[in-house]
Amino acid sequence: MPATPHVEKHFLGSQSVRDVVIGMADGLTVPFALAAGLSAAVSSTHVIVTAGLAEIAAGAIAMGLGGYLAARTDQEHYASEERREAFEIDHMREHEVTELRHIFSEHGLTGDALNQVVSALSADKRRWVDFMMRFELGLEKPDPKRAPISAATIAVSYLGGGLIPLIPYIVGNDVRVALHESVIYTGVALLLFGAVKGRLTGVSIFKSSVQTLLVGALAAGSAFFLASRFG
Amino acid sequence: MPATPHVEKHFLGSQSVRDVVIGMADGLTVPFALAAGLSAAVSSTHVIVTAGLAEIAAGAIAMGLGGYLAARTDQEHYASEERREAFEIDHMREHEVTELRHIFSEHGLTGDALNQVVSALSADKRRWVDFMMRFELGLEKPDPKRAPISAATIAVSYLGGGLIPLIPYIVGNDVRVALHESVIYTGVALLLFGAVKGRLTGVSIFKSSVQTLLVGALAAGSAFFLASRFG
Repeated sequence: MPATPHVEKHFLGSQSVRDVVIGMADGLTVPFALAAGLSAAVSSTHVIVTAGLAEIAAGAIAMGLGGYLAARTDQEHYASEERREAFEIDHMREHEVTELRHIFSEHGLTGDALNQVVSALSADKRRWVDFMMRFELGLEKPDPKRAPISAATIAVSYLGGGLIPLIPYIVGNDVRVALHESVIYTGVALLLFGAVKGRLTGVSIFKSSVQTLLVGALAAGSAFFLASRFG
Repeated sequence: MPATPHVEKHFLGSQSVRDVVIGMADGLTVPFALAAGLSAAVSSTHVIVTAGLAEIAAGAIAMGLGGYLAARTDQEHYASEERREAFEIDHMREHEVTELRHIFSEHGLTGDALNQVVSALSADKRRWVDFMMRFELGLEKPDPKRAPISAATIAVSYLGGGLIPLIPYIVGNDVRVALHESVIYTGVALLLFGAVKGRLTGVSIFKSSVQTLLVGALAAGSAFFLASRFG
C-alpha cells in the first residue's frame, strides 16, 4: 500500500482527464445547441454545417489557448507569490512567525509544542516558504510542462465532442431529419459522457448522466426557441 | 495591517471576478469568431445574428450550468474526502499518524518537536481532519452559496461579452461593413479585457492585452478560413 493512496487517486493522470472533461462538456453542448437552434431558422444543412465548423474551430482554439494561458498564469502567479513570501520572511520576519504561530494555535497546539514546531519550521527558509505556500495560500507548484499538453487535450476534446452533433447535418440534406438524428446521437453521447464524468468525479453515475443531458437539452432548447423567434 | 494581507488579496471578492473573467473570455471570443467566420460564407446579416444569438444562448447556459455543476461537484467531493479522512483516522489510525509524521519530517522537524506536533494535532479528531484536508489534499471547504451566484455571473458575463461583436450585424445590413466594425469593437474590447485581467492576476498588462487579442484573432481567423473554404 502506498504512503498516501488518496493523494495519488486525486492527482495521477487526473489532470488530463479533467482537460478532456472540460473540452468535451462544452464541445458536446454548444455546437449541438447551435445546430439545433439554426435548424429552427434556416433550411440549408450547408449553412448549419458551416456555422457548426466555424464554431468548433473558434471554440477549440479559444478554450485550448485559454487553458494554455491559464496554466501559464498559474505558474507566474505561483512564482510571484513565492517571491513575496520569501521577501516577507526576509523583511517582516516577526510578522511571518506570528502567522505561523497562529496557524498551529488554531489547530490546537499550545505551549512547548507550539514553540517547537514554529522554531523548527522557521529554521529553514526554503521549507518555511514551501509550507506557507501550501498551507497559508493553498497553492501547489504547477508543472511547467502541463500548459501545452493541457491546451491540446482541451482543443481536441472540444473538436471530438463538437463533431458528433454535426455528423447528421454533414451526411444529410434535410434539416428536420438531421436535427432528429443529431438530438439522438448527441443525447446518447451526453448520457455516456455524463456517466464517465460521474464515475471519475465520484458523483452518482445516474445523477451525472441526467444532469449532463439536461444541460445539453436546456442549451439546445433555448437556442432553438431564440432562433425560431428571431430567424 | 490585517493578519494575512495576501490571503485576503487572493480570496476576498476574487471568485466573482474570476467568474466574470471565465464568462467574458469565451463570450468575447467565440461569438465574435463565429460571426467573422460566417461573414466569409453567407451574405445575410440576419443569418449571422440568428447564429450568433443561438450561440450566445447555448454558450451562456452551457458555461453557467457547467459552473454550477462544477461547484456542486466540488462540494460533494470535499464532503466525500472528509468522510474518507475521518474514516481512516478512526480505522487506520497508525497509518494516518505515519502520514502526519511524514509531512512534518519533510518540513524539517525531528525528535521532540516532531513528536509534540504530531501528538498535538492528532489529539483532536476534528482539527486533525481539517489539517489533512487542507495540507495533504490541498482542499478548502467550498462555500455552498457560491454555486448559483457563480452560474449566474458566468452566464451574464458570457452574454455581455458575446453581444459586443454582434452589435454591428444587428444594426447594419452589409456583412462586410459589419465584419469590419465587429473586428474593431471586439479588438478594443479584447485589449481592455486583457488589460483588466492582467491587472487582476498580477501579469503584465501589456502582455495580457496582447495575448487576449491574439487568442480572439486566431479563433476568428481560423473560423473565417474554415468557413470561406467550406461555405
